[in-house]
Amino acid sequence: MRFHTRKWVKPEDLNANETLFGGRVLAWVDEEAALYSIVQLENKKVVTKYMSEINFMSTARQGDIVEIGIEVVKFGKSSLTLNCEVRNKMTLETIVTVDNIIMVNLGDDGKPKSHGKTKIEFVKDRIAAAKDK
Amino acid sequence: MRFHTRKWVKPEDLNANETLFGGRVLAWVDEEAALYSIVQLENKKVVTKYMSEINFMSTARQGDIVEIGIEVVKFGKSSLTLNCEVRNKMTLETIVTVDNIIMVNLGDDGKPKSHGKTKIEFVKDRIAAAKDK
Amino acid sequence: MRFHTRKWVKPEDLNANETLFGGRVLAWVDEEAALYSIVQLENKKVVTKYMSEINFMSTARQGDIVEIGIEVVKFGKSSLTLNCEVRNKMTLETIVTVDNIIMVNLGDDGKPKSHGKTKIEFVKDRIAAAKDK
Amino acid sequence: MRFHTRKWVKPEDLNANETLFGGRVLAWVDEEAALYSIVQLENKKVVTKYMSEINFMSTARQGDIVEIGIEVVKFGKSSLTLNCEVRNKMTLETIVTVDNIIMVNLGDDGKPKSHGKTKIEFVKDRIAAAKDK
Amino acid sequence: MRFHTRKWVKPEDLNANETLFGGRVLAWVDEEAALYSIVQLENKKVVTKYMSEINFMSTARQGDIVEIGIEVVKFGKSSLTLNCEVRNKMTLETIVTVDNIIMVNLGDDGKPKSHGKTKIEFVKDRIAAAKDK
Amino acid sequence: MRFHTRKWVKPEDLNANETLFGGRVLAWVDEEAALYSIVQLENKKVVTKYMSEINFMSTARQGDIVEIGIEVVKFGKSSLTLNCEVRNKMTLETIVTVDNIIMVNLGDDGKPKSHGKTKIEFVKDRIAAAKDK
Repeated sequence: MRFHTRKWVKPEDLNANETLFGGRVLAWVDEEAALYSIVQLENKKVVTKYMSEINFMSTARQGDIVEIGIEVVKFGKSSLTLNCEVRNKMTLETIVTVDNIIMVNLGDDGKPKSHGKTKIEFVKDRIAAAKDK
Repeated sequence: MRFHTRKWVKPEDLNANETLFGGRVLAWVDEEAALYSIVQLENKKVVTKYMSEINFMSTARQGDIVEIGIEVVKFGKSSLTLNCEVRNKMTLETIVTVDNIIMVNLGDDGKPKSHGKTKIEFVKDRIAAAKDK
Repeated sequence: MRFHTRKWVKPEDLNANETLFGGRVLAWVDEEAALYSIVQLENKKVVTKYMSEINFMSTARQGDIVEIGIEVVKFGKSSLTLNCEVRNKMTLETIVTVDNIIMVNLGDDGKPKSHGKTKIEFVKDRIAAAKDK
Repeated sequence: MRFHTRKWVKPEDLNANETLFGGRVLAWVDEEAALYSIVQLENKKVVTKYMSEINFMSTARQGDIVEIGIEVVKFGKSSLTLNCEVRNKMTLETIVTVDNIIMVNLGDDGKPKSHGKTKIEFVKDRIAAAKDK
Repeated sequence: MRFHTRKWVKPEDLNANETLFGGRVLAWVDEEAALYSIVQLENKKVVTKYMSEINFMSTARQGDIVEIGIEVVKFGKSSLTLNCEVRNKMTLETIVTVDNIIMVNLGDDGKPKSHGKTKIEFVKDRIAAAKDK
Repeated sequence: MRFHTRKWVKPEDLNANETLFGGRVLAWVDEEAALYSIVQLENKKVVTKYMSEINFMSTARQGDIVEIGIEVVKFGKSSLTLNCEVRNKMTLETIVTVDNIIMVNLGDDGKPKSHGKTKIEFVKDRIAAAKDK
């Protein structure tokens, strides 16, 4: 799993127990899944369809750094299934895992559309390939 | 199910498909579950432990009003299990449902603590009971 | 008066006296008045025209739950006058009251437009009536 | 009246009619009144007690610049009464006026406390006076 | 230099050292430079092109009031160069200075466009001049 | 240079020209520099002291993905100098570069404190080393 985006836990991210608010973590997970799908599917119109069960295994406190990891589970026809982990950057302790997040690729009409992708691609390769043409 | 909190879908709640951002809905669900638990358990130290799978059944657009409903599934010893639905206030169409959200009641030491509650209570009854003493 | 929307008082809602910031309460009141009017008038183009005097009677602290109540004072021709109370959900103590909030119904041209409503309606009844046709 | 703080109307400041959201204006007014009082009373513990009726006379659109003016109406014993106007910076058209905003000076115990001020002071004069001692 | 906009340092403006977050100050500086340029150039399409080096000379804490000053360095053909200082409103201590901020005036095509301005103008004068015609 | 954090350009990140707001980019740069320094220096009390000149080379639009890269320029005694680039994730076009960002390591008294670090460390190695002891 590759961990990219990092977040600094700020006062507005805390619940009344002074620990990281669950709702904030879920918003971060969903944004990262959307980001990742937009890059892979080369389409800005990607929406979340489903998330499998979510376990809050540990938490974080103000000033902690957390990082968010994404892994591809499966390329569907018009969907992309991802696996996500949020962990503490300093201790590598897991905060939350979501085994399956299904993102759907939409066409201009807002309906599911085949994306034609079958494996992970890197932007550098795409740019190199475009230059070769 | 009782629907209380209402939200007005604003520009900052949208994804690039111009529909309600999934991460925002999840943050709303988690906040409402926390609010509800704090009121029922009479304790501000309540945290989210688990959410069952989440289906995004429909969406909403800018200017729509959505409402969030909560129902108690079970009073555990130190936990409270809730069922949540988010729907469009004008059409009553379901946007998201989460069957089980487990909230945990914490003590001052941040560890799970028995809450002693076994059924839904109303604030008015509590206040009336307090006056009777 | 019916109380619907609930808010959890977070760090960003506080003033330097560590109590609920007045400006935040007023923004909540205005949003709830707008929400309520949009539902009643079945029109998303509703704006605030006037608020009568505002008394800040008590306050709230971080982690408190507050709820916002709305009552219709009068259906005008192109307006709707509301009465609003914000109170602490746990103690039912009043935080702020605003006796008259005048909301105006606008047409597509942004000018006041007759809304044709004369009494409170419920969404369920509207949906049932639509099915009967 | 002196106009200081300026705001740039952004997407998140708009209502569904694509005009400046009333609740946002009220939050700006309250923040400016608090700021002004903190500077005049040389005390960070200042809270809003009362606002007289509020007329929304015109509005603003995305990208507009608005400015907020404050004038002292009266120095009370533990209070300060202000008059506020929000207007469009480019056209000088009035958006909102509030004739009386009563701010209360609090002591460390959170109760009203005499502030000893009777007239507007300028920070430069205070600093010059402090150097003379 | 004229100081206009004032900000109240809130919890969300702090870093983990409980002092004013540098990134927040820079966002305030950029917004004020944009605001000022929009007013002077009478064009909403103004963007930041360059900032000279930035020294963080002191900081601020929660509840402090800071003010932001802007001065024109030079009117270019399609640009405006500004000098900015952020300081503590109560002590007049400098927090940050930026000697040169270059703002560019854009046309409807998003490309630099001559603005025709050569000196500072005041809105009142413009309005008076418009009435004389 | 390693690129980690990714951001999705949302409506609230735009200026009135509908392009990415400069102030937002600077806040992102500062947060990433702080995050990176906290991880490297193993200290949450790190503040921004200086940024060298900033060139806005291109921009981004709503729905674009941008990524932020950081590289160490120099380990000082109580400081860390970083180089930062923000670029478009899909086209790799540079948006902003800042050659030198000086972050200062603070002690509990809020004064600069020697951090004892001389080279980049990876969390995995630290954890492995801690287990070996």
